[in-house]
Amino acid sequence: MDRKLRMGMVGGGPGAFIGDVHRKAARMDGQIEIVAGAFDIDPKKSKQMGKELAIDPKRVYGDVAAMIEGELALSEEERIDFVSVCTPNHTHFPIAKAFLEAGFNVMCEKPMTLSVDEAEQLKVVAQKSKKVFGLMHNYTAYPMVKLAKDMVKQGDIGKIRKVIVQYPQGWLARATEKEGSQQAAWRTDPKKSGIAGCMGDIGTHAANLAEYITGLAIKEIAADLTTFVKGRRLDDDGNCLLRLSKGAKGLLHASQVSIGQENNLAIWIHGEDGSLEWHQEHPNWLYVDKLGEPTQIWKRGNDYIGAKSEAAGRATRLPFGHPEAFLEAFANNYCNFADTIRAKAAKRKPTDLEKDFPGIKEGVLGMKFIEAVVASSNNNAAWTKL
Amino acid sequence: MDRKLRMGMVGGGPGAFIGDVHRKAARMDGQIEIVAGAFDIDPKKSKQMGKELAIDPKRVYGDVAAMIEGELALSEEERIDFVSVCTPNHTHFPIAKAFLEAGFNVMCEKPMTLSVDEAEQLKVVAQKSKKVFGLMHNYTAYPMVKLAKDMVKQGDIGKIRKVIVQYPQGWLARATEKEGSQQAAWRTDPKKSGIAGCMGDIGTHAANLAEYITGLAIKEIAADLTTFVKGRRLDDDGNCLLRLSKGAKGLLHASQVSIGQENNLAIWIHGEDGSLEWHQEHPNWLYVDKLGEPTQIWKRGNDYIGAKSEAAGRATRLPFGHPEAFLEAFANNYCNFADTIRAKAAKRKPTDLEKDFPGIKEGVLGMKFIEAVVASSNNNAAWTKL
Amino acid sequence: MDRKLRMGMVGGGPGAFIGDVHRKAARMDGQIEIVAGAFDIDPKKSKQMGKELAIDPKRVYGDVAAMIEGELALSEEERIDFVSVCTPNHTHFPIAKAFLEAGFNVMCEKPMTLSVDEAEQLKVVAQKSKKVFGLMHNYTAYPMVKLAKDMVKQGDIGKIRKVIVQYPQGWLARATEKEGSQQAAWRTDPKKSGIAGCMGDIGTHAANLAEYITGLAIKEIAADLTTFVKGRRLDDDGNCLLRLSKGAKGLLHASQVSIGQENNLAIWIHGEDGSLEWHQEHPNWLYVDKLGEPTQIWKRGNDYIGAKSEAAGRATRLPFGHPEAFLEAFANNYCNFADTIRAKAAKRKPTDLEKDFPGIKEGVLGMKFIEAVVASSNNNAAWTKL
Amino acid sequence: MDRKLRMGMVGGGPGAFIGDVHRKAARMDGQIEIVAGAFDIDPKKSKQMGKELAIDPKRVYGDVAAMIEGELALSEEERIDFVSVCTPNHTHFPIAKAFLEAGFNVMCEKPMTLSVDEAEQLKVVAQKSKKVFGLMHNYTAYPMVKLAKDMVKQGDIGKIRKVIVQYPQGWLARATEKEGSQQAAWRTDPKKSGIAGCMGDIGTHAANLAEYITGLAIKEIAADLTTFVKGRRLDDDGNCLLRLSKGAKGLLHASQVSIGQENNLAIWIHGEDGSLEWHQEHPNWLYVDKLGEPTQIWKRGNDYIGAKSEAAGRATRLPFGHPEAFLEAFANNYCNFADTIRAKAAKRKPTDLEKDFPGIKEGVLGMKFIEAVVASSNNNAAWTKL
Repeated sequence: MDRKLRMGMVGGGPGAFIGDVHRKAARMDGQIEIVAGAFDIDPKKSKQMGKELAIDPKRVYGDVAAMIEGELALSEEERIDFVSVCTPNHTHFPIAKAFLEAGFNVMCEKPMTLSVDEAEQLKVVAQKSKKVFGLMHNYTAYPMVKLAKDMVKQGDIGKIRKVIVQYPQGWLARATEKEGSQQAAWRTDPKKSGIAGCMGDIGTHAANLAEYITGLAIKEIAADLTTFVKGRRLDDDGNCLLRLSKGAKGLLHASQVSIGQENNLAIWIHGEDGSLEWHQEHPNWLYVDKLGEPTQIWKRGNDYIGAKSEAAGRATRLPFGHPEAFLEAFANNYCNFADTIRAKAAKRKPTDLEKDFPGIKEGVLGMKFIEAVVASSNNNAAWTKL
Repeated sequence: MDRKLRMGMVGGGPGAFIGDVHRKAARMDGQIEIVAGAFDIDPKKSKQMGKELAIDPKRVYGDVAAMIEGELALSEEERIDFVSVCTPNHTHFPIAKAFLEAGFNVMCEKPMTLSVDEAEQLKVVAQKSKKVFGLMHNYTAYPMVKLAKDMVKQGDIGKIRKVIVQYPQGWLARATEKEGSQQAAWRTDPKKSGIAGCMGDIGTHAANLAEYITGLAIKEIAADLTTFVKGRRLDDDGNCLLRLSKGAKGLLHASQVSIGQENNLAIWIHGEDGSLEWHQEHPNWLYVDKLGEPTQIWKRGNDYIGAKSEAAGRATRLPFGHPEAFLEAFANNYCNFADTIRAKAAKRKPTDLEKDFPGIKEGVLGMKFIEAVVASSNNNAAWTKL
Repeated sequence: MDRKLRMGMVGGGPGAFIGDVHRKAARMDGQIEIVAGAFDIDPKKSKQMGKELAIDPKRVYGDVAAMIEGELALSEEERIDFVSVCTPNHTHFPIAKAFLEAGFNVMCEKPMTLSVDEAEQLKVVAQKSKKVFGLMHNYTAYPMVKLAKDMVKQGDIGKIRKVIVQYPQGWLARATEKEGSQQAAWRTDPKKSGIAGCMGDIGTHAANLAEYITGLAIKEIAADLTTFVKGRRLDDDGNCLLRLSKGAKGLLHASQVSIGQENNLAIWIHGEDGSLEWHQEHPNWLYVDKLGEPTQIWKRGNDYIGAKSEAAGRATRLPFGHPEAFLEAFANNYCNFADTIRAKAAKRKPTDLEKDFPGIKEGVLGMKFIEAVVASSNNNAAWTKL
Repeated sequence: MDRKLRMGMVGGGPGAFIGDVHRKAARMDGQIEIVAGAFDIDPKKSKQMGKELAIDPKRVYGDVAAMIEGELALSEEERIDFVSVCTPNHTHFPIAKAFLEAGFNVMCEKPMTLSVDEAEQLKVVAQKSKKVFGLMHNYTAYPMVKLAKDMVKQGDIGKIRKVIVQYPQGWLARATEKEGSQQAAWRTDPKKSGIAGCMGDIGTHAANLAEYITGLAIKEIAADLTTFVKGRRLDDDGNCLLRLSKGAKGLLHASQVSIGQENNLAIWIHGEDGSLEWHQEHPNWLYVDKLGEPTQIWKRGNDYIGAKSEAAGRATRLPFGHPEAFLEAFANNYCNFADTIRAKAAKRKPTDLEKDFPGIKEGVLGMKFIEAVVASSNNNAAWTKL
């Protein structure tokens, strides 16, 4: 490594959750340094965060426009290599668009935009820009998820029949948004979050996980969304029937009001010859079943993992039994994103392994999922095409 | 106990699964003895089973008519107190009807009949007969299920918002019915099994479990059934959205083709103040969550169980840590069924605890569930009222 | 089956725990009927229990002598085939001896006697009697324990290096014996329980489990016993280092004062090529590890179990996913005990599978274990030979 | 934060495991930057690593002496604030000593030295130096371990009776050290590893964990160590009885030859009023039992954790359900170590929370543990004082 990549950040001010996660993940492997940012809509808070991060105050900006202007004014040897967009949902589109158009690579939080229309626009912008665009669907970056994907691809469980994917949480079981929680406030505000609440925030992760592992597309959805907490303006729970490509069937459910559930993203995939099961809260194990055989637990870090899946092996930092978790998955996306940027800088075509991070395509699909889910639910759970 | 109750059995011949379970469960507590039976449609096999059971050959019958006649010919001191009907689905109705009309108490395997119409007929017959009728939905007889029911009733988790209930199996992932498995053959034959395969055989257990614990009724269902195994004549998988009474929402899914799943009936119930979770394959534990508190594992056999739920305490045979399982749940239904018979014999009104076993009501609901599920699925998963 | 075996019982009066377990287990499979008993030292209570069991009052006896006399006075067609001894520890020896000498087969609760000396005496008596003697070490009768034994025997995990076996409970964490608990009272009374408390009551089960599965003998033991509850007269906790035959090492620990532990007998066996792990509270699963391979979970009831271990297959009543538990394990010992009695009655040599239940040998070893453990602990945990 | 702390590293060259872990952990929170190092005994490899880390080549040194000299030659504004010692065991002492004596703060891998004598020497050196010395016992830095410690301290489980701590691994089940594994080679070489193999490498972690949580001291130990793999020169397995202060008893066992075990450090602590249980491979949950109550699962990240334990709250980065793992625990030690260095730099007394990382005291105890274990085992497991 001749030098670290220089990262800028929009969002991630004091008290923000996901911006700090991006920073920790980006730093972990020592190939990225954070050198600039517009961390908060309040310039004082932005400065405060810049100071906490020991960033040169000249590169702590008051807004996106100033940041783009300021960074472009710097030499290529100083300028940020990419920006991470960690703001509330409604600003992802304009900010990502502005940076792409200004010639910066972008790592963007999900959902990519507020609508399919915006998503399609961003797709065009990204293609024109020839810049690298990453979308932070972090859960597909767990090594055992990559292993699962490769097992499916290699035919280990045969043709897929059924997919069950869930993402239950319980933290919005009460009207926390009225009790001062910033995290709850913007997630339940249609202006900031878009047309879906629970299904946009976490349902999209479930859909993305199912499509990533199976390689199938969700074709139709029948969704029954509910707002259980009085006065809340967006859904806080949803149950969906799925029809996927190649005749597979499925179920997707998500919730923010299931008390006791923390972040229980999990998936069960049943094929003609076997099944896979994975739980995000215990991410180092993948359960594998073959017809008529004992259940197997594949455990991250073992030689047999790398032998089966190069992607899983590459996404592993620690030996077996030394658990990895959420931050490492996040960091895996940063690694592949960075490798792709470096490959382009070296005028080299990035490999499939390097390109293994979510981007525009997943962003468009996410918006289609959200629009279909909401449309179906508004239509009494009628089947709705994506 | 002045004497054991005398039990007769229809079905449960050599190689049968559920008949033997009924016998083991009925015997366990020492208050029931098996004294008569028409064990198989083949009289030789019926005799063979009678011999294996050391039953007086005179009371081993060739068919139901002979059995009714034979038993009625005996004095009240000898005659069976009740019959257990353990035959394939399509014969439950006529056999149960015949015994009720002849004045016998009946314990019947589920599903009770092949249609709502038959179920309603049997209801009338049972009411007229004034005999005790039990339906073997065994899973609701686990002590921890009774505990869950009492917790809901006592308001421990508040108003119910969401119910997820599943019953995945994998034993029919291949066309086992064509490879000589009797169990598979009748379950996949519409003539013997009725209009539903998977949803009739096990989906009904899931529905029954959800209604038993929550005290809510499934009002509407949107079902997507599939037959994954080529040539099979009934569904072997189904996914359903549920709308229950009092505004609760839910999901029910069942499968016979989910490789690696054995008999994984499980339920998650989320209320405004807390949640419950139970797994049939590890039946001695109930997970309880209250908002903002550590997860609790309530373990069968502890004093705190009996203090919370008399029904759960009463359904317990062994101290904590000495696991109870499937047979004991089965036996619990027999105990309450027997207590109710004894109460009636003693001209005493059975208590609510004694009457806590499934019967006609659950049988009717089961048939309504099956008909609604199939109708919905045939109508592209349109919402269908029960 | 031409007839049920006739069982008598000593002990198991009102409120007793283990006697009732014996009855439920013996009844379950329908080949044994309870026809006589001396259920309690108090004749009234004995009668009461006889009535509850619907036993002919003439065969409810006031004491052992009367029972032996009474049964011998009956014809062979009526007389009990065997007696189950379910009394407190100190009476096992004289009662078992008396019945053997009178020509009865005996199933005896453990520990077999109060000393190695008594155990050796009983051995001689049993040999002379030519009667069948069973000792109820029920935990080795779980199907997955038999599977584990056969795996070891077939060399699946190679030469054994290390065995860890534990039996922690918490029910005596307080001086329950002073608060009216009969169960606690006799277990903590040296006159009734013998020289060891916890190590006699449950440590022996752990030792028996380890020896049964591994086929190794515990040769030397270094034991550190403690009485944590003030005023208690016997150990309520113990930690032991083990040296087994063929160079294997091990650990055995048991406790009655480990709050939260219920009946957590568990074992880990590590060989040169693989490992096994089993937990009594979730008895249907056996964890199997081979070097460099994913962990396997072998689940009771699958075809691959019976294919590996005839004994495990034979000890199975229900299909996979329909959990079996404590009572079935108990009943398995009764089945093999009964088969052996029937074989002898038929002048046939019982097969190895039929003879697979604990007896005199395990009883002698249990007493040697207890004496060695206590001696070692009294000698500051010095290595002590068994 | 006015500036990042500047870290140097000794060891952690190409292919090394623990050095890379130190770097990832140190970087994660963005308050430490790696600016210098002597990464490998082979200067070429050291340079290679320096390049990979994008470190100024002038600060990549060939050996410790050169590094000390080079850094001292720099101004205080450039010079490293501390060094992390990540070399094989036998070099910890001289390297740590040299840096302390040269006036640098030191974070050292465990074991601190090769003998109690060296450890006592280092203690004197460290005290004289007035520098901050940290020892990387990372497992005690998990939030749930800190919670456990605070629960014990606050009396939640009462006076401690029994501690069971284990650290089984299986990666040395074969003579891997002869097959080219560097990790295996130095760990089984007495010159590099010291007098103990398994017990030094991981047994010390188990001992440290037990003492950290309970606040008790291991007073006496009876140890039975074994070398199972032929030709290996150090123990690869060990079983120990423990006697702790205040009358507590315990068991400690560790292994490198337990196939299937990965890094299964776990602890059970039983007190007069309750119990705690924690497993390193699933580190986000702590099991808590109180007499007569349901088992509780305390889950990292919940408000109730921080309310009970400030140390646990402070050691938490992510919300509940977003699992943290091994690297975060490591990083927690770096955070407190860095805070202590900053406090001293600011002429402020570090708080108890800031000082909550292992150091000289734990290093001395670790060496006493190792010497006692080996002495006891050489003396046929006789009780040996620490």
